[in-house]
Amino acid sequence: MTPPHSASHHPVVETPIQVRYAETDAQRVVYHGNYLIWFEVGRTAYCERVGYPYARMEEEGIIIMVSEAHLRYRKSARYGDVVTIRTRMPQQRSRGCTFHYEVVLPDGSTAAEGETHHLFVQAATGRPCSVPPGIRDAFRAFAGV
Amino acid sequence: MTPPHSASHHPVVETPIQVRYAETDAQRVVYHGNYLIWFEVGRTAYCERVGYPYARMEEEGIIIMVSEAHLRYRKSARYGDVVTIRTRMPQQRSRGCTFHYEVVLPDGSTAAEGETHHLFVQAATGRPCSVPPGIRDAFRAFAGV
Amino acid sequence: MTPPHSASHHPVVETPIQVRYAETDAQRVVYHGNYLIWFEVGRTAYCERVGYPYARMEEEGIIIMVSEAHLRYRKSARYGDVVTIRTRMPQQRSRGCTFHYEVVLPDGSTAAEGETHHLFVQAATGRPCSVPPGIRDAFRAFAGV
Amino acid sequence: MTPPHSASHHPVVETPIQVRYAETDAQRVVYHGNYLIWFEVGRTAYCERVGYPYARMEEEGIIIMVSEAHLRYRKSARYGDVVTIRTRMPQQRSRGCTFHYEVVLPDGSTAAEGETHHLFVQAATGRPCSVPPGIRDAFRAFAGV
Repeated sequence: MTPPHSASHHPVVETPIQVRYAETDAQRVVYHGNYLIWFEVGRTAYCERVGYPYARMEEEGIIIMVSEAHLRYRKSARYGDVVTIRTRMPQQRSRGCTFHYEVVLPDGSTAAEGETHHLFVQAATGRPCSVPPGIRDAFRAFAGV
Repeated sequence: MTPPHSASHHPVVETPIQVRYAETDAQRVVYHGNYLIWFEVGRTAYCERVGYPYARMEEEGIIIMVSEAHLRYRKSARYGDVVTIRTRMPQQRSRGCTFHYEVVLPDGSTAAEGETHHLFVQAATGRPCSVPPGIRDAFRAFAGV
Repeated sequence: MTPPHSASHHPVVETPIQVRYAETDAQRVVYHGNYLIWFEVGRTAYCERVGYPYARMEEEGIIIMVSEAHLRYRKSARYGDVVTIRTRMPQQRSRGCTFHYEVVLPDGSTAAEGETHHLFVQAATGRPCSVPPGIRDAFRAFAGV
Repeated sequence: MTPPHSASHHPVVETPIQVRYAETDAQRVVYHGNYLIWFEVGRTAYCERVGYPYARMEEEGIIIMVSEAHLRYRKSARYGDVVTIRTRMPQQRSRGCTFHYEVVLPDGSTAAEGETHHLFVQAATGRPCSVPPGIRDAFRAFAGV
């Protein structure tokens, strides 16, 4: 198991996002709640890279639910900035997995970082289930977890 | 048929909303896109008052879709303001209806107003359909349309 | 003056957007209010292409406000779709301008289209003002309006 | 210092929120990112109850920034549900404070809970500062921290 905060050998998927005006707030910076949306954009890109986009999981009767989210804010992002979401999967468990995210500003500094924890759920029953072998192996092969 | 902009005799449902920080943008006022969300909050309250909340329509196999939206912005709303959404239904048609909204600031002036046009759709087929008689009569009795 | 709905010779700026999970709603399609956010993404790209991004306008003491928005919905967009925002400026006026948008689905059909009307405002006074010549000429040269 | 997760004697401010359609996602439940917005609604109500709304802090040259956020999701909230945000302040520090939130469903069960950590910042300089005595004492008197 890799500590979630370590600089790590896990492959990183990078996703650029240009800050939208709608994402700013009256402090003239990106509203802190929007980082969870960006995390999901990074997670989507990660799953696509692995070859297992959400849509494919849903076709196989599996839903990924968010069980926890943790965010640490360092610096502000502003309208028009092109930030980069750096997503990796430090951990896969029998019934879930963890993603780690870093939001990098144009100058290379970190705006925020955090993790989300997920559970695999059977769409039909709504109950947590083991990660199906096909999904487990695809992520294992890509992420080395 | 009542012209949609007229001051009218149609009953109005009023819904107070306190502006959230997340709803502001870098101009330090409410982001213009959020008025469509407020319109929906007003519409929800209206349908509840009529006795036909969305949930009941869905149970009866009916979905309301938005086919058009029109917004005219007059003044800015700010974080912490308690605005009032004044919602009325100026028109019901065989296959749809129109809602009109006015967003009123604490000083009584108008922040924005507009309309949304809706089509009734059968959930099972995804096709437009006539307004079911039960819904039609409930709104007619309340709205006088 | 060009009618806002006409197929027109005005240059179009295309912006791809991949639908985010956060942008969907319980009807499993993109929430109708999010199209105003996408229109703004298209407008931002348009202004950048012209060489007059918002940031440059603000530096020159000018703010663009939205005075009206109109949206017509045709088909639904879904999570994961890459839609294209096609933005053009059919009209420039002495104190404002109009943008037109079309949101195109992966199969080439139109999900929605609409217009936003804008006023130029002096940041210092908050009052509407004439379009500054530098901005007017830049948009005129690009848009042919 | 009170452990942040303990059932505690700290006074709780309750804020009802009716779930908006815009807050749902394609899983037909409230999008997980929206809980941070609800936390802020709870925090706003808490500060108002204390007699120190954000606006008053800003007038005194102080901004509250979010430095960390933690969320644990238990059950789903759905469109139309009236949830209650239960907000308390388990901890005040020399340069910041912590809020704790619980989102309670209509049946009394917990949808989610979490904490946000905050730093006080001088608006003029953008630098962290000690909690001004007036603010410190007002929160101490109310929250018992």
